[in-house]
Amino acid sequence: MTPAVVLLSGGLDSYTAAAVARRDGFELFALSFRYGQRHQLEIESARRVATHLGVSRHLVLDLDLSAIGGSSLTSPDIPVPRDRQVDATGIPSTYVPARNTIFLSIALGWAEVLGASDIFIGVNALDYSGYPDCRPEFIHAFERLARVATRAGVEGRALTVHAPLMRMTKAEIIGLGMALGLDYGLTISCYDPAPDGAPCGHCDSCQLRATGFAAAGVPDPAGRPLAR
Amino acid sequence: MTPAVVLLSGGLDSYTAAAVARRDGFELFALSFRYGQRHQLEIESARRVATHLGVSRHLVLDLDLSAIGGSSLTSPDIPVPRDRQVDATGIPSTYVPARNTIFLSIALGWAEVLGASDIFIGVNALDYSGYPDCRPEFIHAFERLARVATRAGVEGRALTVHAPLMRMTKAEIIGLGMALGLDYGLTISCYDPAPDGAPCGHCDSCQLRATGFAAAGVPDPAGRPLAR
Repeated sequence: MTPAVVLLSGGLDSYTAAAVARRDGFELFALSFRYGQRHQLEIESARRVATHLGVSRHLVLDLDLSAIGGSSLTSPDIPVPRDRQVDATGIPSTYVPARNTIFLSIALGWAEVLGASDIFIGVNALDYSGYPDCRPEFIHAFERLARVATRAGVEGRALTVHAPLMRMTKAEIIGLGMALGLDYGLTISCYDPAPDGAPCGHCDSCQLRATGFAAAGVPDPAGRPLAR
Repeated sequence: MTPAVVLLSGGLDSYTAAAVARRDGFELFALSFRYGQRHQLEIESARRVATHLGVSRHLVLDLDLSAIGGSSLTSPDIPVPRDRQVDATGIPSTYVPARNTIFLSIALGWAEVLGASDIFIGVNALDYSGYPDCRPEFIHAFERLARVATRAGVEGRALTVHAPLMRMTKAEIIGLGMALGLDYGLTISCYDPAPDGAPCGHCDSCQLRATGFAAAGVPDPAGRPLAR
């Protein structure tokens, strides 16, 4: 089997992207990060998802991006925006500076060690929060960088960054995942859940998820009474 | 003053590159990594160098690249090559997969939070070990990536990755550093020093350094009897 590194956040999108990789015959090497995000529930979800997908290995790395700050996901003193509030740039404060660049870079290093030429990432540029590092031009620029960044690149083994959800609506993503037999009850999407894991219902991620399930015409298996 | 993020390894090159940034009027924000390298002496050197340069802040982040492996710098079971031994690709096993991509990505995130548009890195493509991520084409590809990866890029604030040593010989780098008043006695270059910090004398880094000081016609202030 051909190995692929799959970035797993514990959310719905990365789970679906990884399932696409599995469907396409790749052997999965999952990579998650404790990067100083507000809650560690994401990592527990990522572990459940990795188990469910039958990955060959799940690597969880620590990298404290809260030391850098600049995001409401890593700085407790910056509130998570509610009800689709954005700043003047159209990019909400949940944007974590350079996060996907950092995660893909580390995935690139692991891929090189594994002899893998494929990375899967669950970014989406349709039903998303406007993050610059979720767009096709970002993915393509990263692939170009990889060609000159690594031994594999120098030897002519091009890296492909697969973003199979890039142009799908959230409802389409959910429909695809259902068809692939995924259990979205394993995932967590909320940026700012209660300590018991109950979603806030007001953050971008909660609202995109709720709208997606409604449009897909299926109930959210992780659905619970909203926390507040 | 204009802020700049400077990558500091504790070695001679990054110290000199940071001193160039200071000479050019930048306020320095230094970034170092405990990435699972063989010895922590590098970090002590980086701290000494940061203090000597009068940086505004020195951030030392933990990121365990030994979990990924694939390099003699992070895997105790892969020996550090001696006396310029390389593999068939011309790239020695001290190459750490995607290391500079990873370090620059994190520097990019910090730069965005600081409002900085400048990063300094001490890479060199002349007296070097043949690492792909030390070449001009890598630096340029990273700058192109940054344009589409961040909020700053989307807003049109282009990132410049300064690699002032790129086309200098090691002797020229040392001459520049002496002219800038640097104390190379603060630095450590060896990939595989003895526990007391004595350099091995046989790794690429020791040999490039020794040849550089000899060509510059000055004694190495960190010079000591070789360990073995």
